[in-house]
Amino acid sequence: MIASAPLAETAERLRTGEVTPAEYFETVRDRIDDVESEIHSFVTEPDWDLLDGQATALGDRFPDPAGRPPLFGIPVGVKDIFHVDGYPTRAGTDLSPAAFDGPQATSVTRLRESGAIVLGKTVTTEFAYMEPGPTRNPHDLDHTPGGSSSGSAAAVAAGLCPVALGSQTIGSVIRPASFCGIVGYKPSYERIPIKGVLPLAESVDHVGAFAQNVEGMALVAPILCDDWRTLPEAPETPRIGVPAGPYLDQAAPAGREALEAQLGALEAAGYEIRRVEVLDDIDRINDRHTDLVAAEAALAHHQWFETHGDRYAEASAELVRDGRQIDVGRLANTRASRIEVREQFDEAMAKHDIDLWVSPGAPGPAPQGIGDTGNPVMNLPWTHAGMPTLTVPGGSVDGLPVGLQCTTRFGEDERLLQWGLSIASVVDGAA
Amino acid sequence: MIASAPLAETAERLRTGEVTPAEYFETVRDRIDDVESEIHSFVTEPDWDLLDGQATALGDRFPDPAGRPPLFGIPVGVKDIFHVDGYPTRAGTDLSPAAFDGPQATSVTRLRESGAIVLGKTVTTEFAYMEPGPTRNPHDLDHTPGGSSSGSAAAVAAGLCPVALGSQTIGSVIRPASFCGIVGYKPSYERIPIKGVLPLAESVDHVGAFAQNVEGMALVAPILCDDWRTLPEAPETPRIGVPAGPYLDQAAPAGREALEAQLGALEAAGYEIRRVEVLDDIDRINDRHTDLVAAEAALAHHQWFETHGDRYAEASAELVRDGRQIDVGRLANTRASRIEVREQFDEAMAKHDIDLWVSPGAPGPAPQGIGDTGNPVMNLPWTHAGMPTLTVPGGSVDGLPVGLQCTTRFGEDERLLQWGLSIASVVDGAA
Repeated sequence: MIASAPLAETAERLRTGEVTPAEYFETVRDRIDDVESEIHSFVTEPDWDLLDGQATALGDRFPDPAGRPPLFGIPVGVKDIFHVDGYPTRAGTDLSPAAFDGPQATSVTRLRESGAIVLGKTVTTEFAYMEPGPTRNPHDLDHTPGGSSSGSAAAVAAGLCPVALGSQTIGSVIRPASFCGIVGYKPSYERIPIKGVLPLAESVDHVGAFAQNVEGMALVAPILCDDWRTLPEAPETPRIGVPAGPYLDQAAPAGREALEAQLGALEAAGYEIRRVEVLDDIDRINDRHTDLVAAEAALAHHQWFETHGDRYAEASAELVRDGRQIDVGRLANTRASRIEVREQFDEAMAKHDIDLWVSPGAPGPAPQGIGDTGNPVMNLPWTHAGMPTLTVPGGSVDGLPVGLQCTTRFGEDERLLQWGLSIASVVDGAA
Repeated sequence: MIASAPLAETAERLRTGEVTPAEYFETVRDRIDDVESEIHSFVTEPDWDLLDGQATALGDRFPDPAGRPPLFGIPVGVKDIFHVDGYPTRAGTDLSPAAFDGPQATSVTRLRESGAIVLGKTVTTEFAYMEPGPTRNPHDLDHTPGGSSSGSAAAVAAGLCPVALGSQTIGSVIRPASFCGIVGYKPSYERIPIKGVLPLAESVDHVGAFAQNVEGMALVAPILCDDWRTLPEAPETPRIGVPAGPYLDQAAPAGREALEAQLGALEAAGYEIRRVEVLDDIDRINDRHTDLVAAEAALAHHQWFETHGDRYAEASAELVRDGRQIDVGRLANTRASRIEVREQFDEAMAKHDIDLWVSPGAPGPAPQGIGDTGNPVMNLPWTHAGMPTLTVPGGSVDGLPVGLQCTTRFGEDERLLQWGLSIASVVDGAA
């Protein structure tokens, strides 16, 4: 059920007037009518009268192609933990949206001000934690699309919208992007403002985005991020590090085989690959991140849980209850650990002359069934350290996509996107 | 050692050119030379070459009185937990200021952009908690000026600067203002941005200010606060509530007597006074606030304490250690309590037709000695609830000033300042 909807090309066609927003929305509508009833990526039916009106109004407002903003007429999906003016926020719950009310997310405002039109809110696991929604993987409806940004990843993979917003607290952007065969981007911590997004764990909550390829992500990242720059020249071909050892051992055999195929393609293309033993304390990092998420979720959810705790799914309720038991000293240690892990990566990168880490976007391809959204363990240490991460499609295993997760130094998102362009072209179809 | 330095009049004289900034700084210098060696309100000797240069430059920059900003040439003292460009931040410690480095506080920028000149950093207790500095009360050098904003309160009372910045997490603005016979203002929570101020407990940290009278505070509050408005007409004479019961019983007999004298003056001037039993759970509120401060201090101080804990005074170290033991559930409850207490006040105000609460600014006059900065217990519930509070001088006990603490609804700082003007004129000298 996948279909092509490349952001950069679509934006170009809309800006030049080759197709009008109103015309484009007709094709989007047809595509949604065809597949959405099986994929369930949106939380509600799109309001076509409203959307057609917005598309027409946008065309009227920018008659001159030269004056059109970069995302002129691009439909976007927004994970239903972001506040969007005109849409309720339900966060994958059946609570009244009044409980979550708030002003529009800064990231949504940035997209809208760049000409994008919100197509609808996309399915999230409950509170962006673990309890899954109804979304299915467009590559195989018997499989999960991943989570927690399930609907955004599936919608982009299915060609329903060329770009969508998600969030990642453990592995909620990179994992579903990897499972759905698309590009996912989790920026450096706080690089895209989190304002207007329901918190799960504020010290590690990241806004992220989905697109079908790196060219599309390179168009939207500068719009979403604070202070996008042109960095001083970097090596055109980054020296690549593979985080060997107990971290990588967490991947499934199929995931590790896929990684080897991707590494082979990179080596054949002239990339230097260094296997470096890092993250030998991955168990402790996993424990710390788990406690950090639980403790901060308990703080963020306190009032909601006091009032509506009986309507939380067991996974979410347990998270909050576990978090309440953690003491402040432990919370402080887990927060400090973020910087310690970042420094650990920085030291290894300096010592071994590494520019970019690559690792599997998920332990393997999307698991069967939609009762569980898969394991975020491959994404966890990079989220913990707040380092910028991009996953690119890297072939498939048994017909299901597998992604290659690329990570570089904190704050160097610009380089990550630049390097991602060529790496994506090398590893595409490698596994 | 007190001297008159009324902000509004001084600003008027500077703006009209009756006196130039350079001339005014000469008188400030004389005053500091006379008394500062006994009061110890500043952490370092003022750099007179630098200050004279700034005063002269300011005069050159605004030759036309009509174009002068509202605080043109006004010297301000800034508590040494605020970052100020050109000054190190030491926070009452002997740690290297490099440990605390950061961009200038928003509040300081607002004052400087309004024409104020930073005279120097003022003495704070260690980390704005309890360990006192060397400052003495200008009314009687054998007594504490209060804390934690000790130097700012003393400097304003001694006429060294017409305005100074402080902060309040329990009672660190209102108490020293009361002890020093001046006006202290703690706004609604977050009404003055806290950015650039070292945190003690972020959920209850407030930026506040000192001036010699309410007219001066009414000049500076709109500069410091976000979105200062003209509120729809309020009753010119607010209906006054006195929070009778266990909260008030915490005051010393001398403090309660002073309050009765102030209430008598208000009644004689035509104010309606209602004694209302509220805060019957003050012990629980005190406990919650104490735990909230400890838990959040443990979070804020984590890195500093790990690195420099051996150089913390025992009171500060104990705070951090105690805070680390508190569990996240308790922290969440104490944060939620802030809003519960605010609602409790709002309900009592609605039920009893009260516009303004009055209470003692401190349990009594400033205690003897400088080994301890006095008890913040009269200020605690209002800080906890984040309600705006203004203390005005209300006479004296045994030659030491006592203040009347006035509080109104969250967000109605404009009314508080307006009402404070007439109340101050009534209670001045009442006790």
